[in-house]
This record gives sequence, C-alpha cells and structure tokens, in this order.
Amino acid sequence: MPAPRFPIAHPFDDDKLREECGIFGVIGVQDAASFVALGLHALQHRGQEAGGIVTHDPEQGFNSARRFGYVRDNFTSQSVMETLPGPLGIGHVRYSTAGSKGQTQIRDVQPFFGEFAMGGAAIAHNGNITNANALRRELIERGSIFQSSSDSECIIHLMARSLQRTIPERMEDALRRVEGAFSVVAMTRTKLIGVRDPLGVRPLVLGKVGDGWILSSETCALDIIGAEFIREIEPGEMVVITAEDGVQSHFPFRPQPSKFCIFEHVYFSRPDSILGGRSVYETREAIGRELAKESPVEADLVCPVPDSGTPAAIGFSLESGIPYAMGIIRNQYMGRTFIEPTEQIRNMGVRLKLNVNRALIRGKRVILVDDSVVRGTTSRKIKDMILDAGAKEVHFRIASPPTAWPCFYGVDTPEREKLLAATMSEDEMRTHLGVDSLKFISLNGLYRAVGETNGRDNACPQYCDACFSGEYPVRPSDMIEKGFSLKAAE
Amino acid sequence: MPAPRFPIAHPFDDDKLREECGIFGVIGVQDAASFVALGLHALQHRGQEAGGIVTHDPEQGFNSARRFGYVRDNFTSQSVMETLPGPLGIGHVRYSTAGSKGQTQIRDVQPFFGEFAMGGAAIAHNGNITNANALRRELIERGSIFQSSSDSECIIHLMARSLQRTIPERMEDALRRVEGAFSVVAMTRTKLIGVRDPLGVRPLVLGKVGDGWILSSETCALDIIGAEFIREIEPGEMVVITAEDGVQSHFPFRPQPSKFCIFEHVYFSRPDSILGGRSVYETREAIGRELAKESPVEADLVCPVPDSGTPAAIGFSLESGIPYAMGIIRNQYMGRTFIEPTEQIRNMGVRLKLNVNRALIRGKRVILVDDSVVRGTTSRKIKDMILDAGAKEVHFRIASPPTAWPCFYGVDTPEREKLLAATMSEDEMRTHLGVDSLKFISLNGLYRAVGETNGRDNACPQYCDACFSGEYPVRPSDMIEKGFSLKAAE
Amino acid sequence: MPAPRFPIAHPFDDDKLREECGIFGVIGVQDAASFVALGLHALQHRGQEAGGIVTHDPEQGFNSARRFGYVRDNFTSQSVMETLPGPLGIGHVRYSTAGSKGQTQIRDVQPFFGEFAMGGAAIAHNGNITNANALRRELIERGSIFQSSSDSECIIHLMARSLQRTIPERMEDALRRVEGAFSVVAMTRTKLIGVRDPLGVRPLVLGKVGDGWILSSETCALDIIGAEFIREIEPGEMVVITAEDGVQSHFPFRPQPSKFCIFEHVYFSRPDSILGGRSVYETREAIGRELAKESPVEADLVCPVPDSGTPAAIGFSLESGIPYAMGIIRNQYMGRTFIEPTEQIRNMGVRLKLNVNRALIRGKRVILVDDSVVRGTTSRKIKDMILDAGAKEVHFRIASPPTAWPCFYGVDTPEREKLLAATMSEDEMRTHLGVDSLKFISLNGLYRAVGETNGRDNACPQYCDACFSGEYPVRPSDMIEKGFSLKAAE
Amino acid sequence: MPAPRFPIAHPFDDDKLREECGIFGVIGVQDAASFVALGLHALQHRGQEAGGIVTHDPEQGFNSARRFGYVRDNFTSQSVMETLPGPLGIGHVRYSTAGSKGQTQIRDVQPFFGEFAMGGAAIAHNGNITNANALRRELIERGSIFQSSSDSECIIHLMARSLQRTIPERMEDALRRVEGAFSVVAMTRTKLIGVRDPLGVRPLVLGKVGDGWILSSETCALDIIGAEFIREIEPGEMVVITAEDGVQSHFPFRPQPSKFCIFEHVYFSRPDSILGGRSVYETREAIGRELAKESPVEADLVCPVPDSGTPAAIGFSLESGIPYAMGIIRNQYMGRTFIEPTEQIRNMGVRLKLNVNRALIRGKRVILVDDSVVRGTTSRKIKDMILDAGAKEVHFRIASPPTAWPCFYGVDTPEREKLLAATMSEDEMRTHLGVDSLKFISLNGLYRAVGETNGRDNACPQYCDACFSGEYPVRPSDMIEKGFSLKAAE
Repeated sequence: MPAPRFPIAHPFDDDKLREECGIFGVIGVQDAASFVALGLHALQHRGQEAGGIVTHDPEQGFNSARRFGYVRDNFTSQSVMETLPGPLGIGHVRYSTAGSKGQTQIRDVQPFFGEFAMGGAAIAHNGNITNANALRRELIERGSIFQSSSDSECIIHLMARSLQRTIPERMEDALRRVEGAFSVVAMTRTKLIGVRDPLGVRPLVLGKVGDGWILSSETCALDIIGAEFIREIEPGEMVVITAEDGVQSHFPFRPQPSKFCIFEHVYFSRPDSILGGRSVYETREAIGRELAKESPVEADLVCPVPDSGTPAAIGFSLESGIPYAMGIIRNQYMGRTFIEPTEQIRNMGVRLKLNVNRALIRGKRVILVDDSVVRGTTSRKIKDMILDAGAKEVHFRIASPPTAWPCFYGVDTPEREKLLAATMSEDEMRTHLGVDSLKFISLNGLYRAVGETNGRDNACPQYCDACFSGEYPVRPSDMIEKGFSLKAAE
Repeated sequence: MPAPRFPIAHPFDDDKLREECGIFGVIGVQDAASFVALGLHALQHRGQEAGGIVTHDPEQGFNSARRFGYVRDNFTSQSVMETLPGPLGIGHVRYSTAGSKGQTQIRDVQPFFGEFAMGGAAIAHNGNITNANALRRELIERGSIFQSSSDSECIIHLMARSLQRTIPERMEDALRRVEGAFSVVAMTRTKLIGVRDPLGVRPLVLGKVGDGWILSSETCALDIIGAEFIREIEPGEMVVITAEDGVQSHFPFRPQPSKFCIFEHVYFSRPDSILGGRSVYETREAIGRELAKESPVEADLVCPVPDSGTPAAIGFSLESGIPYAMGIIRNQYMGRTFIEPTEQIRNMGVRLKLNVNRALIRGKRVILVDDSVVRGTTSRKIKDMILDAGAKEVHFRIASPPTAWPCFYGVDTPEREKLLAATMSEDEMRTHLGVDSLKFISLNGLYRAVGETNGRDNACPQYCDACFSGEYPVRPSDMIEKGFSLKAAE
Repeated sequence: MPAPRFPIAHPFDDDKLREECGIFGVIGVQDAASFVALGLHALQHRGQEAGGIVTHDPEQGFNSARRFGYVRDNFTSQSVMETLPGPLGIGHVRYSTAGSKGQTQIRDVQPFFGEFAMGGAAIAHNGNITNANALRRELIERGSIFQSSSDSECIIHLMARSLQRTIPERMEDALRRVEGAFSVVAMTRTKLIGVRDPLGVRPLVLGKVGDGWILSSETCALDIIGAEFIREIEPGEMVVITAEDGVQSHFPFRPQPSKFCIFEHVYFSRPDSILGGRSVYETREAIGRELAKESPVEADLVCPVPDSGTPAAIGFSLESGIPYAMGIIRNQYMGRTFIEPTEQIRNMGVRLKLNVNRALIRGKRVILVDDSVVRGTTSRKIKDMILDAGAKEVHFRIASPPTAWPCFYGVDTPEREKLLAATMSEDEMRTHLGVDSLKFISLNGLYRAVGETNGRDNACPQYCDACFSGEYPVRPSDMIEKGFSLKAAE
Repeated sequence: MPAPRFPIAHPFDDDKLREECGIFGVIGVQDAASFVALGLHALQHRGQEAGGIVTHDPEQGFNSARRFGYVRDNFTSQSVMETLPGPLGIGHVRYSTAGSKGQTQIRDVQPFFGEFAMGGAAIAHNGNITNANALRRELIERGSIFQSSSDSECIIHLMARSLQRTIPERMEDALRRVEGAFSVVAMTRTKLIGVRDPLGVRPLVLGKVGDGWILSSETCALDIIGAEFIREIEPGEMVVITAEDGVQSHFPFRPQPSKFCIFEHVYFSRPDSILGGRSVYETREAIGRELAKESPVEADLVCPVPDSGTPAAIGFSLESGIPYAMGIIRNQYMGRTFIEPTEQIRNMGVRLKLNVNRALIRGKRVILVDDSVVRGTTSRKIKDMILDAGAKEVHFRIASPPTAWPCFYGVDTPEREKLLAATMSEDEMRTHLGVDSLKFISLNGLYRAVGETNGRDNACPQYCDACFSGEYPVRPSDMIEKGFSLKAAE
C-alpha cells in the first residue's frame, strides 16, 4: 500500500512559521485512547501531517497506532480505538521537520517505543534537539540501529544504553545529554512522565479529570475532555505520575533562567488556551491595542487577515475606535490545499482560500492586521486583492516584530535568506509589499503586551525571542556544523 | 467498491437550515471544467455531500464525473480533470434532500444528462419541485424510467417527451409543468442555459470572464475565477447563451410578483456575495444593528456564535458600543464530524467543534448573537458551555425571526413539530433555553435591514418568508398530499 | 470517488474469446443475496470486470449493489450483504462489451432496474441484441432516456412502454421486438423469471435448493450452494417462478430449430458444469481423443497450454498413449495483469503468467494442446518459450476448428481482420507460428465429440458455429449497418 | 489509515504446511527493482502476506518499500518503482510466523535495514533462528531497541554490535552466533551477499543475467527474468558479489553434513524449479510412481487434489495405468479467502474453492492423490464431496510420510497435538477420514524418489526430515524453553 501522501503545503500557510508538534498524555482513566484522541484533536493546529497514540493495558500490554492525516479521520472509529485498550496512554501530532529531505515515512511518526530490560516505554517529544547529529553519530558507532530520520529517536536509544535502573532515571540520564528545547511526555507500564527542558522553551501543562491526570501542550486540550487546568509544568521539571501516588516532581537539571517561546503568544497557541494566567486571545487583543498605540493611522476599517490576525485586529479596533470589519472572507472548505491540482487551479493560489468582500472594501482606507510577515509572499497577494477590490489605501499592521532569524527549537522556519526581514529594512519591506504603510510592533511593545510592564530585559530577556533578536539561548550546534552563522556579537 | 459514505450530520450544523444546492455553468472558455470546479468550490457552503460536473467538447462529446465529498478532494487532480475536456460545462453541489429515506446513491448526484433525438442535454437544479410526486406518477405511467430518487429528474423526462423541436423550447415546455422554486443551469452541445422560476425564490447571477459567460448561484463564485459580475438573472427569465451570439433573454412564464428567499440574506449566502447591490456581510451587520436597536441589553461583551453569527454580532457591537470579542473558539479542523465515533467520543457532542474562551468569559455579562434558532439543541449546549465557564449573565440575540414553518423550496428543514418556535412562544423558548434574555429580530426589522425601509408589505410581501410567516407563495402540493397542514387563514 | 479501473487485459487472455456475462437468480430462500453472491462467484469465469445484485424484501423493497471487480472482493462482507435483504434476488457478472469506446461506467453494470406503474422489476441479460441500435433510436425518439451504454437497457425501456398489464407480459412483449441471442433472468416483487431466446444460443439452467428455485447460466453455480440440477431451460421458453406456485412455463416465441453455442463446450463453460447431460470436462477430453485420431503425431510428451487446454490434452494422451505432462507451469498468483506496469515489466509479457518446465522439456518432442487460436500472438510466444527451453520438436493440436469469424451473440471477439484464421490457411498459420506441425480439429470432428455421432448437419446445423463457419443464424443487423460483410453465399 | 488487513487463512491452505519466506537479490543491472519485483512474483508461493524491496543507487542512496499483499498489486506501478532506483537490490516475501500473537505490523516486513558506522546494509532472511529468544534478551540487556517482533531482526543488531570492520565480516560474526536454519540475502552500497546455514536447510541459488548476478530461493525466479541458472549456493557458503569482481566464495562456518529440507521436494518449491539437477515436477511424478508401486489399488480414475497433488497423481497414473482425470475442479478466482464473510458464506468452507466434477465421478472407484495430510480437516471435506457426488470407492494416496512433528526451521506448522499423524496410527487415520483406503509413501520410498537410490541413511540422514521422523538436526532451544518435548531417544 503506497504511503498516503498528505499535502502539507497550504497555499497560505506556507508563509507562516509552524509549530512542529503537540503532545498529550493521560493516566488513571477508562479508555485512555479516547482521551488522547480528543486531546490531539484539540492540538491539531500544532501538527497536521500525522499522529500517533500508544496505550498500555495490564492484560494486553502496549499497543500503538500511527497514521498520516488528521486525528478526526484516523482516531475515532470503533475499529481503531478498540485496538488501543487501557487506562494509560500518550499521543503526538506532528508536522514534518524542516530539514528532512523527501517525504515523511510512517516510521518517523511518534510516539517512539522501546523495549528495555526492565520493560517497555513510549515517548513523545515536542521541540528540537540541537546536538542530535553528534548524538546520532555516537550512538551508531556504539551499535544502535536507528529506525527513523527523527532526532527524537536519540532519546530512546540513550535511554536503552543508560546504566540507571528505572525508566524515569534512564530518562533523566538521557535528557542530560540532550541539548535544545524539549517538552516530553512518556509512559511506562504504570507511569506517566512529563519533562520540560531547563529553559522551558516549549509549553507543557498539567490537568486533572476525575481521578486521572493529564499532560498536554496546551490547556485547550483539557477543555475538550472536561478536565481541570492545574498548573504549568515548570522549566526543568520532571513529573512522574502514577494512578496510586499521583504527581511526584523532580528537578533533574541545573537551574537556568527560563526562556519561554514568545511566539506561542503571537501565533502558535490556540486563542482559547491559557498561558501565564491569561487567555491567549486576550494577549493577542492586547498586542493589537499596543500596536494601535505605537503605530496609529487614519482609516475607515480595521480588517484582520483571517484567521490568525483576528484577535489583534479586534484589539486595534477597540483601541483606535476605527470600526472592525471582515473585509477578507476565508473559504471554510479550504482545510487543506487541493491534491495535485491542474496548472490552471494551481495558479489561483491564495484566491482558493480567501476572497475580498468587494462591496464592503470599495473606496475605503483599510488597515490590515496580520500576526507576522515571514516570506512576504502572502502579504503581497492580499494587498493585490484588496487593491483590485477598489480600496483607496492599504495599511499593514503586524502583531509581531520583524521575523529575521530562523528558529531551531521545534518550529519550522524557512532558511534565513528567505525571511523578508533578514534582507530588508522595514522601509524596504513597505516598498516591496507596495502598501501605503507597514508597521511592526516593537520588541518592547510585544513584551509589554504579554505582561512584562517594563518591557524586555535586554541583559537577560524573559522569553526566547531568537526569531526576532537573533539571540539564541541554546547554541544550535548541528546547524553551526552545517554552516549557519550566529549574529555577530555587537 | 462500497459507496463512500459521507458523514453529513455535523454535531453543530444539524441544528441549522441547510441550502440544498449550488449550481454553476460556463461557456466560451478554455478548460471549462477547471472553472466549474473552482466555482463549485466557492459554492461548497450550499451543498457538501456530493458534486458533479458535465462538460462538452466538439471532438469528445459529453463527459461527466460525479462524486461524493468535497469539490477540493474530487475535482482538482489532473487525472480527473483531463476526462472533462471542452469549452462548455455545468456543475452542481448538493446536500441530500430532507425527504429521502436512507442514503444518497451516486445516481442521485446531478447534473442529470439525457440523450434526446436532437442531441444531448445536461441539467442542474437548485430548488424544489412541489408537484414532483404527481409528475413522477404521470411520467412512469407513460413509460419513463427514473434512475434516481431526485425530484429534479422529472425535468429531463418532461423534456424528453416534449413535442417541441429545440432543447431550449423543450426546457420551457417542461418547466411550465413544474411548480415550486427553481434556478436551473443547463447545457446542450453549443448552448449554456439559465432559468429562474417566476417568483425568483432561489438566486442565479450572470458573470463574464474574458469572452466567456458564467451562470452561478452566487457572486462569490465569480470572484474566485476573476469574473465580472454582470447582473442577477431576473425572476421568470430564461437566458440562452452561445459563444457566438452571447446572451439572449426570454420570459416564458406568466409574470408574478417576485419572492426572493429572505433567508439567503440571513444565513445561506456567503458574506462576500452580493445580493441586491450590497454585500451580504453588510446586510448581516445591518441586521445586527437593527437587533441592537430593537432589543438592547446591558452587558460586558458581544460574542458571536461562530461562524455564522459573526457579522450580526459585529453590527450589534458597533450599534451598542459594547465591545466585540471571540468568546467561543471554533476548532478549524472540525470540517466534518468524526467517522463512526466511539460512544465516548460521540458524547462529547458540540465540544469537538467549539470551545469557550474561559479566561475571557469568567464573570462577564455576555450577549451571544446567532443567526437563527431551529431545534434549539445547539443553543442550549452553548449556553451550558458559557455558564460552565463562569459567565454572570447570558443574553441571546437572534438575527432572524422565530423559525416556525418548514421550507419546501429547496432548503432542508426539520419537520414542523421539531422547530422550537412552532411549539413555543418566545418566552417559553427563553425558559427552555435557560438564558437571562432571548430576543429575535422582528419580521419588520429584518425587512428594514435587508433594505425595505418601510418594512414588510403584508398584503404582498416583497420576499418569501414562509419559514417565519407560514405564508407559502407556492402551494406545497406534494406535502399537502402527505398530510401537511397550511396555516389557517386568519 | 474515482472510477475504480479494473485491468481487463490479461497478458494471456486477450488472445482468447471471452464470454461476456453470467447470470443467476433465486427465489424462496432466506438471505437470497448470499446465494446470488456464491452463484456469481462460481460464474466468475463468465465475466470478471464487474458484478451486481438486486434483491427484494417485502418490508424494505428493492435494493441493489453494483461494483467493479471480483465477486469475492465485493459481495461477501457483512456490511454489503446486510444492505441486500430478502428472499428473492438476481445477479450478473460481466466483461465490457467489445464495441464500447472507453471505459465502463458503474451505470453500465447490470442488473438494470425499472419502476413501472404496476411496480418495479430488475433484469439481467446474457447475450447480445443484434438490432439494439435501431431499437435505441426508436426509443429515444419516443422520449426514453437511456442511462447506460448497454444494449440490454433497451429491454427495460421496451417493457416500460408496453401496453400489457403484468410485468411477465410486458417482458414477452419487449423480447418479441428484440433480435439476437439472449438468456435473461428477471424479478418482480414476487416472481423470478427466466427466458432463453428461440434459438437457445446462450445457456440457462433450472435448479432447486430446499423450497427455493434457482436460475443460473451454468450448473457449477448450483453445486456451490448445494442445489439440485433440475433441467435446462429450453430454447424459446419463459419460466415464471413464485414461492407459492413454483415453476410455470410458457413458449411465447415462434418455434425455431435450436442453435446452442458450440464454443460453450470448447471453452466458455466451466469443466465441472453439465451440458447436454455430460460434464463439459468429458466433452473436452472427447475432443482431445478425436483430435488424436484425426491428427496423430509421434512425440515424447503431450502438454496442455494451461489451464484451458488441460482436458483435451488428457484426452489426447489417453487416446495416443503418449505420456501427459505439465510442461508449462502457470503462476497461480497471476489472477489479473499487473496494474500500470513499468516498461520493463510490460515487456515480460506472457512470462509473468507461464513458465516452461525446462528440465522436463529439454530434448523432447512436445505436443502442445490448446483450445483455440484467436490472434495467434500467445501461441507464438509459447512456442518460443518451449524452443528456448530446448524442445526438439513442437506440434500444436487445437481443440477447435479455425476461428475465422467474429461472434455477435454475446462473446467478445476481435474484429475479423485480426483473427489469424480469417487471413491465413492452416498451412500459412503453421509457417507463421513456426511450429513443426499445426492441426485443428475438423468441424465434423468437433460435432462428433460433442455427441453428434453423424457429425454436422450442414443443411441445418445442430449448433451455432458461426465463429468457425461464418453461418450466422440471426442476421447481425447493427453490425451490417456498420459495414460488416456476411460470407458470400456459395 | 488503518493497517490493510490481509486475509491469510485460506479455506483450504490452512490445512497445509507453509513455507514462510522467499528471498531474491540482484546486482549489476539497470533498474534492479523491476528484477526484484519479478523475482518475488515468481516466489509468491513462498509467502503471500507481505513483501518488501530495498535498492541502492549511488546518487539517491538506499530506498525501500514494504507492503501488505501480493507483489503484483504493490510492486509494479511506475509510481512505486521509480522510488526504488539503482543497480542493486534485494527483496523478501513472507507469511506471518506461526507463533506471533495477533496481526503482523508493517515494521515486521523485511528486508530489515541498519545504518552502521561504515554505511548501511539491508538483509532478508528465509528460515528460523532457534535461539532467537536468548539472543533478543541479551541484545536488549545491552541497549538494542527492537522495532519488530521478527526473530530475523537479531541478525542486524548483532551486526551493529560486531567489532569487525567490514559489513561482510560483521555478518559472518553475527551469523556465527545464530542457531537454526537460514538462507540470507543482504546488500551494502556496493555488494550483494548470500549465505546458507551450515546444514543448508533452506534453498538458495545463484544466477546470471547479462553482466548482473542473481540470488534467489528458487530457479523459477531466474526463468521469469530470463536469467541463467549457475549453481546452488552450498551449505555453509557465503558469497560476496560486486559488479566489478563478480562472485567471491567463503565458508565461514564449521563444516557439517548437509540437511536440505526434503519437504521442499514434496510441496514448497514450485514444480518448474530445479532442485538437485532435476525439475521438482519430475521428482513429484517419481514420488507418485513410487507410491503406486508401494500401495497399488484397483480403481477407475486417478484424480489429484488440486493443485499440489497433480504431479504425483500423474506419476501414479503413468505407473499404474489407471486413467488420470480432473475429478475436482478448482475455482481459479479463489485467490484469497472472502473478506469478513457472512455466516452463511463462511459455512460454505471448501466448496468456495473446489467443486467435484459430479458427472465424471458418479459410480466410479476413485484414487485421490494429495501431497500431505496435516490436520486432516480438508481431506475429510474432500472425501465428503466425492462421496456426495456418487463415487463408489475413495482411496487416498499421500505423496509424503505422515507429518507427525512440527517444523522449527522456517515453516509454519500447527502445534504438534493438532497434527493428525501425531495422535493417530495410519489405520486410525483411515477410519477417521472415512475412506476405503489410505496409504502414505514410506520414508525410504520418498528418499528413493528424490534420488537416493539406497533410501534413507538412518545413521546420518541425507535430508532434514524432522517433520516425519522427529529427528531435529538443530536443537530447537527456544521451543524447548517454551515446553516442547523432543522425541525420546530410542
């Protein structure tokens, strides 16, 4: 059976940064697989290419299913779910990794499973290991056989070779060798384990449902199953959860100042998730307000670029008093791109997904609010559509600073030279896009909007903002080996 | 190969009225099939169950493809599209008809094709024939063999038996026997034909792209292919279009006062389509403003029930000054319902599709704006979700009058006894839904919002509003035969 | 859903004549659909491209399923079979018709169904209507709409327009207008009907299982369900079977001398079926014996061309005393041809299906027995393989006379000019094939082997042998209209 | 995408022993993948559940494809084959292993691939490792992670941990730790490697095509690609083949008397393959002759149980002078069993596959020749069918001695207590089967027929005949650990 190829390039989304993974785990419930499936469905925005679930049942042992495509299409039918019995399970949704040549194989789909002398373990990983190449070379030298092209497989091989006795101890041992950004959920026959890297770059939260416990990338996956949000797992924390003893917390790593990914606030997380005690929606509305303060302009309408620009556009409208309107309508049946389209259809590009509300826009001065500018290709097309429809002026307002550096911590970014902001000044970008004005929120303004009232601490920034600042909190060793140049120290 | 069953019951949309069809035709272009596919994609909201395309090529004759599922999944690949050559084509998207027992067969999917003595013709129909049962009995008696359970097939059999010489004449002949609401696009080897019933209940518009001509249910399908909107086809008008002579117009039916479906403004049409010279979005914003004037209430937030309540909610916010916010977030990966879900997943119901923005809603007085209340099942669940999230008050504002009567003109409505407004007063509904207040826009208010500044002309209403008023402009003969009781004359 | 393309061209079988259909019907049993499925499975050799089943249940009415592909793959699963309830059903397996341009559509797959004023009827047809074009023109003129490209659809339209009252009467009426060869099974809500044309060209047998009755193309389909073989339906006979009254027989056509297809004995029928009171296997063995008497030759081994030459080869060996051996081995996994093979694989041709038993053949004088020579392409390849393997001599013995004329009575034959025997004498064929000797059984010898001890009655042949003699018992009107020339009267 | 479940239980073949694998490799040709696909197609009888191919191309590195189902359905299309470029490739077809609980996963499908420090290697294995459990425990203890449930994966992990420098040396190192029966084909970037275990239990042959070299389980796979049969790989031999230097031979194991599987002659190998210088067909014919000499009986017909009994039946007929006839006809469309059949269809059992030629059998004394009796279930059903058809006497003649012991060397056998001959004497079996006589060939007779003119050397048998004699040439350690009892020494 040929591998089902899943078209990952959306006509629109290929001009976005993409979170590469969502992870979810549950222990102490009946039919864990259904919980995992629902949780992954809620996390689908973090990875649409493929998904996998592993469960454990005292009688039937470990079982797993890994599939290309959406959770809703793969992990709901009776026939699949009954192959995944038991009260304990973990799951993973993923995009393909930026660096991978060619197509993803099903063997690259997590969770990964390993049989150790003391029993089996499964592991699902969100993030990116920045010294994976070196680790892989060393492990192969010692006789490990890699089955996937995924960097995350290093963790399970390191665990297999650890001298420690228990699986949690082996995981600590393994993760101490790993550099980079990671949130991990793992399971043994009786334990659910969660870990965040010492910087806490990627999110991981703890929830409770009845007598059961949940680990999830975001709180929106707690809501879908009616679970209570308990707290975020802390940077550098490992929690080991059993049905009997509940949650036990360790801090196996050397403490470091935390560096949560600020782009989770801007774009990756779902607006109904809670981050830092506030809904992501509210944060984005606040970004829009801040943007309106920093870069006001006279206009008739504030329109979002759907759907990700919507909360910031509402904030901009509320702050500025300029009416909010849906000037661009999204075709809701455009879930994925067309499959192997004809030439004629391919040329339609962004029109398949978006349409301008012509009758509304005609003759108006329009502010377009978008979350970010990556390559700038989509921004140009949208500007053309708006002008075609008869707008008098077009003003872009962007809810993030210029994206000038690639992310090496689990986000799919184009190479640096393809980032518009890496090669152009703000003014050059305005000319390139052909708009009447173009303004990005300042880095300080963004920090204020996410709740840092004094703005960015340049000596020790409160977040990872490498994609804007080029200041990488973890050295990207593999990439430097491949020729990537860090920002020259100033 | 088993018929691919397409899950038509959305956990949410089954509490909506549903337009049953979208139609599209084009003549005088290269590769008509690509135009039809893109047009149908833009009309997908009018019918998600299945679609079909027929084209004609001077060398290869008529070709057709009919498929279950979305246009984007079926009508884009080179391998399918190259089987549909030629400069002339029509297409159709559909829901299953309310009355059909059991599942749709592929033979029920339009366009229908008939080989006549003077050549072939294909036909696609949006609407409903109210005397179809009687016509079908008569045709079978005379020896016609029906291949589908679709009422629309009557038209092609009537044409086959017509004594007229040309296909357009036979179509006139056939449609004069038909009662009900219909917009039709049809094609012969050289002609594209469009017809609207004398009341003009269902929409049909004319567009132009290069030297080619378009017929479409809505203008949004003109935008996607870069076509110019020329005008609406008039009630009772038949246009016959050839590549050489362009558009020729006839009025074969006895003239009648027009009765366009007012619900197209409220819900069916896409917000970026133009109806009556104004964008549907603006009309819906106006409905929201009118609603705010008619039924104001003190509150902290105006939230739409996504996605159809959004424009009216924006209008309500603009009129009332109460901030607009996305209190309910839609899972964008919930395109269709889960396939044969397990019990546990089925019980999640509406949560799979919607999530409340808990952190935002807590402690607030919330106005929820929705387009309509049909059975009321979804409204109750949404109210529960909002209260669970800690809202202090919940006020429903509905952008249409109470839906108390079924539609027999091409819209899928529950039986009358399942319509909440058929059995309850507005006050009983408020109690039933358990909300702090519930207000519908008045019928007069709705007429004002759609542009009738003097409101409804009760003597001869300007629109078909049977679903609100019970006043049916065409006698629903088949339904009366099956036992449906008209509203008692007052 | 893309039409499932079924590769009909076997690397080997495309050099065979092919029966185009098998038909089966049952009444008075529990779960008729399972009986029909098993019967069609036993008749699969008569049509591999597609199959269909219609059943009737007093509560659930008529139901049908039509699929491309093998019966075993389509009509066995619980999920399909439970959609076909009831005690009465008919079914059909088919090849595509020779003359059809392009690919078969699912709508061409029988049984055909028609709703008449007095109720529905379904019909399945084996054979070919020789005046179908004229009938179709007339019916379209009168307003019938054809849904398929199948000639058999004429029958159901003729029935729809008949002035008779009952369905059996209408069927008589319709079949009197039809010229050609046909065996038909049909059903109403309460009756199973079987008819053979007046010449009895195509087979049809009657069986009994418990209280139920069976109609089938061959007796092998009675064996698979444990049914008893009662008798053959006679030429020109119509049987109407009800659960209550059993079998009632009519002879609605003008009597004519029967002309059963002699090629059914040679190749089409399964060797375990009974024809004329004797197993087809025994008849074929007798053909082989007759061939050994007519055309003896000194040799070391008698080898069949598998699988169809096997019984005649055994007969040849028994008569001649030359040992029988499997010199050519068939790959049993070569059910169908490879799907869209690469160039390299396509060039392998017949090797994919057959391999010579090299160690056995080397240095031997080999007699190869085959059932027929059509184009001669396969015979050449097999001869090459045998010589490559080191055979000293190769002698072909063919169990039928030279095939020099196409069949127009329900068998897929190449056009006349592609038949080797239409353009070459026996001696030219021997030279063309490059074998040491080539002998066909004589027409008289074939008649003797099938039981006519005095051979062929040339004044009024006992069988239809048009493919050998060019004497067509029914005028092929449609083909003559298309330019086919009958054999000049001598 | 749900794992494609392949129905492995044939209604008939589940009463056969089944070879578990076929292997094939080629080097030095254009488009190696097409050669491997054709070779595997010819070896399909050795494994029908799944297949895999790995190729190497200097530019594109290693590529692989593994699929459930037949070779002809998976490895022929342009789209799959073009993903497998290069001049060097190996492949594997497999049944599932008897002992595996539950269903096969795609990760269990060979060839297995490992990336070592000095480069990658792929390996395909026919046979069974009798100390696999112990090896697996040891490897896991050392930190290897197994991805499959296949015993063959041990080999690649042993290779990964070997201290040797080159891949052939590591393979020698690994195979010296392995006990059991194995034929292996493997490949590096530049080498094709073949190995047989010291006893030579499973077959492996060397062929040549143009400048390229082939390794294959049987010679029939050489014929299909037009390759020349060079010689058998010898027991204990390792050949390392490069395009430049051709075949280099080593004997890395301690020499032992060879023990080729005698059942390859009886049933596993294809009749057109060459074993020991003679076609398998001729050997089977000789077995039939020997059987006729040992156990003659008066009768009217000798009939094979199709298809595997055919050559021995021909031999029996030639020796005895009793006419050979096809008394049982096999439905050639019964390639696999029905998919999830209804109860009614399941009960049809063997009738779906076989039908008795009733008209031929009636009143006759019939000798049925079969290759073996395993559980005896099929033999009983066939006897019933023959008697139902009216046979006067039924005599079974079996072309192998009683199968009383399971095979642990790569053949799928029922547990010992399910083997009819393990619990019954020949006479008890005759009564159990209810036939007039039942005779097995003697072990000595079988040895004579395969060419050992003096019969079996009981001191040191020339073949592995453990399934008949219970004398296992390699200790089945894993099975003994699980409780299997060896035959008591006498």
